[in-house]
Amino acid sequence: MQRTLIVDLLNAAAPADNVALCGWIRTRRDAKEFSFVELNDGSCRANLQCIVDAGTAAQAGLGEAATGAAVRVRGALVASPGKGQRWEVRATAVEVFGLADPETFPLQKKRHSDEFLRTIAHLRPRTNKYGAAFRIRAEAGYAVHEFFRSRRFAWVHTPVLTGADCEGAGEMFRVTALEPGQTDLQRDFFGRRCNLTVSGQLEAEALAMGLGRVYSFGPTFRAENSNTPRHAAEFWMIEPEMAFADLDDLMDLGEDLTRSVVEHALAHCAEDLALFDSFVDKGLLARLKGLLAAPFARVPYAEAVEILQKSGKDFAYPVAFGTDLQTEHERYLAEEHFGKPVAVYNYPKEIKAFYMRQNDDGRTVAAVDILVPRIGELIGGSQREERLDRLTARIAELGQRPEDYWWYLDLRRFGSVPHAGFGLGFERLLMLLTGISNIRDVIPFPRTPGNLEF
Amino acid sequence: MQRTLIVDLLNAAAPADNVALCGWIRTRRDAKEFSFVELNDGSCRANLQCIVDAGTAAQAGLGEAATGAAVRVRGALVASPGKGQRWEVRATAVEVFGLADPETFPLQKKRHSDEFLRTIAHLRPRTNKYGAAFRIRAEAGYAVHEFFRSRRFAWVHTPVLTGADCEGAGEMFRVTALEPGQTDLQRDFFGRRCNLTVSGQLEAEALAMGLGRVYSFGPTFRAENSNTPRHAAEFWMIEPEMAFADLDDLMDLGEDLTRSVVEHALAHCAEDLALFDSFVDKGLLARLKGLLAAPFARVPYAEAVEILQKSGKDFAYPVAFGTDLQTEHERYLAEEHFGKPVAVYNYPKEIKAFYMRQNDDGRTVAAVDILVPRIGELIGGSQREERLDRLTARIAELGQRPEDYWWYLDLRRFGSVPHAGFGLGFERLLMLLTGISNIRDVIPFPRTPGNLEF
Repeated sequence: MQRTLIVDLLNAAAPADNVALCGWIRTRRDAKEFSFVELNDGSCRANLQCIVDAGTAAQAGLGEAATGAAVRVRGALVASPGKGQRWEVRATAVEVFGLADPETFPLQKKRHSDEFLRTIAHLRPRTNKYGAAFRIRAEAGYAVHEFFRSRRFAWVHTPVLTGADCEGAGEMFRVTALEPGQTDLQRDFFGRRCNLTVSGQLEAEALAMGLGRVYSFGPTFRAENSNTPRHAAEFWMIEPEMAFADLDDLMDLGEDLTRSVVEHALAHCAEDLALFDSFVDKGLLARLKGLLAAPFARVPYAEAVEILQKSGKDFAYPVAFGTDLQTEHERYLAEEHFGKPVAVYNYPKEIKAFYMRQNDDGRTVAAVDILVPRIGELIGGSQREERLDRLTARIAELGQRPEDYWWYLDLRRFGSVPHAGFGLGFERLLMLLTGISNIRDVIPFPRTPGNLEF
Repeated sequence: MQRTLIVDLLNAAAPADNVALCGWIRTRRDAKEFSFVELNDGSCRANLQCIVDAGTAAQAGLGEAATGAAVRVRGALVASPGKGQRWEVRATAVEVFGLADPETFPLQKKRHSDEFLRTIAHLRPRTNKYGAAFRIRAEAGYAVHEFFRSRRFAWVHTPVLTGADCEGAGEMFRVTALEPGQTDLQRDFFGRRCNLTVSGQLEAEALAMGLGRVYSFGPTFRAENSNTPRHAAEFWMIEPEMAFADLDDLMDLGEDLTRSVVEHALAHCAEDLALFDSFVDKGLLARLKGLLAAPFARVPYAEAVEILQKSGKDFAYPVAFGTDLQTEHERYLAEEHFGKPVAVYNYPKEIKAFYMRQNDDGRTVAAVDILVPRIGELIGGSQREERLDRLTARIAELGQRPEDYWWYLDLRRFGSVPHAGFGLGFERLLMLLTGISNIRDVIPFPRTPGNLEF
């Protein structure tokens, strides 16, 4: 179908006699001599105004089409006398593809609550806010790929279906081809218990031992029954893994990735970010630019604990060496104490996973969390334990069976190398970029306890 | 850790006195005055040869390290007198990170069967062939993103967890947070039956109705108990969806995407493709270049059936108007009759899905499959039925309940537009690019009936 995208028409260098554009009517206003029709086609946030002369064939074509209707307009792209728009279209023909009954179409021109819009997740991409959110999501995803490729990381696809249930990152969903009530695992698709992955890390490590630098970027799952604005049962995670790398390299990578995606969004999503800065989170743009202005802070966990203890703050959860940091602590460190993102490293081994590299002090591991204002933990990672004896001992110490990890231990048995990696929740990054405070609103069709519609 | 990637050293413009490189020893050969060590770090297929002088500290550092060991070499990058390599490294220091016991390390320098290598999927990325395959996989994935972004398609993440079980694309896995034997769905995570998606199409359509042009690119699942070289239980699918588009636009898109990824691979993966051309599928490069040389053929299904009937071929499955094409028919059309990729369109409605747009002839739908030599069907798609009455009637005709599709029908109720989309199995594309004939060998950790290891 012959048409030009509205984003390209709005960026046109010169007027044009014959253009065709398609889109959905955002608003229509009928004056005596014209109808003014604002069209949006999703290619950008801005609408293109079309002028339809009264009494013409074009106006007959337009008919009763109003907000929500899909149309094609042909006409001339001309300089607009109106304010805030460079071009408009004088219509010579209008064709209606599909109407939207004003009595029943839910997206009339008024402000809707986020809660209501979640109940019509199939229609909310047609609003300014969600159109912008999902365009930013797409650009941020591209920025992630571009960043890693420029540093010669290979995108790898780690499996979603896994036999492992020992990673410890959270509750797992079970997958089966049996009908409910059937319990004979031998007869199930894989002949054994199958779960949805909570992390592709272990497989990414295997790939990094051959390809050198890899990252996975795919969906990840948690069966945790928590109804919070920060948790979803299905979300996308970015997990780089680097051979021949230590904790310093990892902190550099996490910082560089975060900055790179923010830079990309500022450069390529200015119009959409401006919406969030104006209507959702005033000060967003200043905060994003601030994040680029200075290096992230870096502080050992032990020192972070001291800072929190001396803060004079009345935290809901007390903090002492050996306790995990809560979101309130993370936000205090990033927002109030450092006033910028901060990497906290060298955590007590008891509160971290078995695969993290043991430090020489005997009580900490080479783990790092990167905390950012408003979000708390954005990135969590570590240098991995590459020493076979230490890793085997730690697995046994935690009451697990080393033979269940045979292939993971093989990576330490044959050509083991210092290596490191982290996980970054993509939705957290999007909440940072947009100021959206509920994870349900950065995912097109969010999955949370009891919510599986669409 | 200070180091330079081997790919960058091999592309160096000038010699350098002090370089450090890390990698795994591919081969080691000890002569009287030197040890020759070929190092690979996964950044490219080629090794970099390091010369370690006998009797030096460097040789002492190297010790007994042999094939599979991980080391860091420091030294000078100098012009190589050897054939086929521009640079080599004269080592001044060697540090061993991890040895690989020659008695137990499975990847000694000999050819291994693909079947054997699948049993050590955690180690096979260290071989030339699988390193190349997974680098090509990464580049092809990037090429997909680059292609769509250049045409202003937004990458969207459609849900993996779905309540729909009606899409009809294949058998679905069930997902639950209940323990085996518990059957009370009310008490399950979502309070209803949950499946793993077989296609993100329906959700992508909703997003295209707001964003205009979108594509999903994520994992997809089939619980079909079929042990063939072409089927896996988990694979990645690319599903673009375009508003304001018809079947011709869709055929253009499918052809352009295929050509674009092939072009990208030829430009960016020459060294890795050469391996497959030499050792896996002689003639691969000629075939890929041939694919770019001429436009794809396009033929209506009815005409394709006639061609097959007149072919004089003794097919295992007879063909007549109304039968689905089998791989043998698809390959005959692409390989023998047309000698290039061919788009077959306008299929009988009875053998295609309910959402495909009904043609005016009353017996066909605006569906298209793109068939390629050696693979058969690479792409399957259609213009979607955008007319509410036709779509509702078709759903009822097939014995399903239109109310189960309430939100999908809403897309036709409010601002419906002509639109079209397809699905492309990413692994099929990789088999086309590499000549690898078993899907298990283009996926890092493949999932097939009974296989869930790693």
